[in-house]
Amino acid sequence: MTAVLKRPLKLALVQLACGISKLTNHHRNIGADKAANLSHARAKVLEAAKAGASLIVLPECFNSPYGTQYFPKYAETLLPSPPTKEQSPSYHALSALAAEAKAYLVGGSIPELEPTTQKYYNTSMVFSPTGALIGTHRKTHLFDIDIPGKISFKESDYGKIGLSICYDVRFPELGMIAARKGAFLLVYPGAFNTTTGPMHWSLLGRARAVDNQTYVAMCSPARDMSATYHAWGHSFIVDPNANILGELEEKEDIVYADLDNETIESMRKGIPVTTQRRFDVYTDVGEV
Amino acid sequence: MTAVLKRPLKLALVQLACGISKLTNHHRNIGADKAANLSHARAKVLEAAKAGASLIVLPECFNSPYGTQYFPKYAETLLPSPPTKEQSPSYHALSALAAEAKAYLVGGSIPELEPTTQKYYNTSMVFSPTGALIGTHRKTHLFDIDIPGKISFKESDYGKIGLSICYDVRFPELGMIAARKGAFLLVYPGAFNTTTGPMHWSLLGRARAVDNQTYVAMCSPARDMSATYHAWGHSFIVDPNANILGELEEKEDIVYADLDNETIESMRKGIPVTTQRRFDVYTDVGEV
Repeated sequence: MTAVLKRPLKLALVQLACGISKLTNHHRNIGADKAANLSHARAKVLEAAKAGASLIVLPECFNSPYGTQYFPKYAETLLPSPPTKEQSPSYHALSALAAEAKAYLVGGSIPELEPTTQKYYNTSMVFSPTGALIGTHRKTHLFDIDIPGKISFKESDYGKIGLSICYDVRFPELGMIAARKGAFLLVYPGAFNTTTGPMHWSLLGRARAVDNQTYVAMCSPARDMSATYHAWGHSFIVDPNANILGELEEKEDIVYADLDNETIESMRKGIPVTTQRRFDVYTDVGEV
Repeated sequence: MTAVLKRPLKLALVQLACGISKLTNHHRNIGADKAANLSHARAKVLEAAKAGASLIVLPECFNSPYGTQYFPKYAETLLPSPPTKEQSPSYHALSALAAEAKAYLVGGSIPELEPTTQKYYNTSMVFSPTGALIGTHRKTHLFDIDIPGKISFKESDYGKIGLSICYDVRFPELGMIAARKGAFLLVYPGAFNTTTGPMHWSLLGRARAVDNQTYVAMCSPARDMSATYHAWGHSFIVDPNANILGELEEKEDIVYADLDNETIESMRKGIPVTTQRRFDVYTDVGEV
């Protein structure tokens, strides 16, 4: 989806401690309290709005624990739209929050249950400053990796639940399509881990930026070593030249950056790959 | 082009001091002596072969100065194939060298003049250990960049002369196509400079490796601060996981790495993006 945003704009990535809940002190059911997670997300989003951000991003699975075993319990129903408060408390909380913050809000992602097919998706909703839903994205590539001796994680156990939304970043096509259709910023709410994070998190985000000459934002949950899944953290924003404008450590924090058109135009004029593509030699994947 | 090579194989990138010639001491016409450059390239390629390399790569424009003003003087004619010794001394020198080294030889690139159209190309020739020409590649993307206040360089001044062959690395499609057609190694003879080198040389090579889960080799000329074009150097080889197996500084040197199938297979099994692409959602650019 594409939102039309005035620029320059201030972008904020909220590296949320998704495990914060009333139950944290018991070291069980980390992040299990959805209402507490939504309330905590609200506080951090309002903090970012107060700092001037007009586009605010939450991480993947920001209101539930991260792990396939939690999806059936935490999944919400988004269709037909709009859902009732019972069908999707997150929809209504995010809508109200966007309006309260008077900012565009990328609601990280939540597990979605499609009522007709009974399939699971990993879905991101985007709300406008009036609280209107202006776009949804169901994760396209299943996160289903198995690195021997390191980490094994299968979201596809539950059928078509999306992956770690961030996993899409490994597939150049989605970014190419979005950029060629006019996107100036590629946002990947994501939860890389302490194995794949140091290897590829920064590399892939910077690669997508320089390949497409767009801004790229990678927004991770904060790391919680008492959870079953150890998110990498390190949320960051890069400019179209692959310069890192801001990057966090692993703990809860917010990173901001001012995005403008001029940087993109200057980069695209300097190294004009966007006008030099050889669609006589290969297919334009943006033609969809 | 694709060559069938037994693995494991030892790869060598020769970061040639292309400016070395009998005239160097006069600081004029650097690298202008084509015969001296070919002779110097021969010595370094034989050194790599003696060290056990079975695939040896020379950099872009390895036997001429790097600059559009030199292309008309240095261009050779390769068609109809095989050319005579007068039409292409480089063809015959590289063919003989591959046979002498008993190795596959990627002949960096040379300026080519197409006799019918009178257009210029930046062309790479690949020879087998018997000295047979087994592939040629004319650079696909024109290197025609203009970064205000930094560097201005236009190869397209002479029409369809390829770019810095390395410039193709900025276009994900060529690597995607090659990898999906079975390439296990993407070779970019290239001449990034001291502006674009520190920004993108390593990032782009590592990105192409992890996107396609192939080895990537980026082979630059050595830096010569007395030349008009200051090559970045830093030739390197990365594995499919984006780990740098070997990287040079800016001076003349050779970097080696042992490439095998197992690393690719292990990486592709661990993070199976090669089997998870969603060609129901986007076009397969490899379908050409």
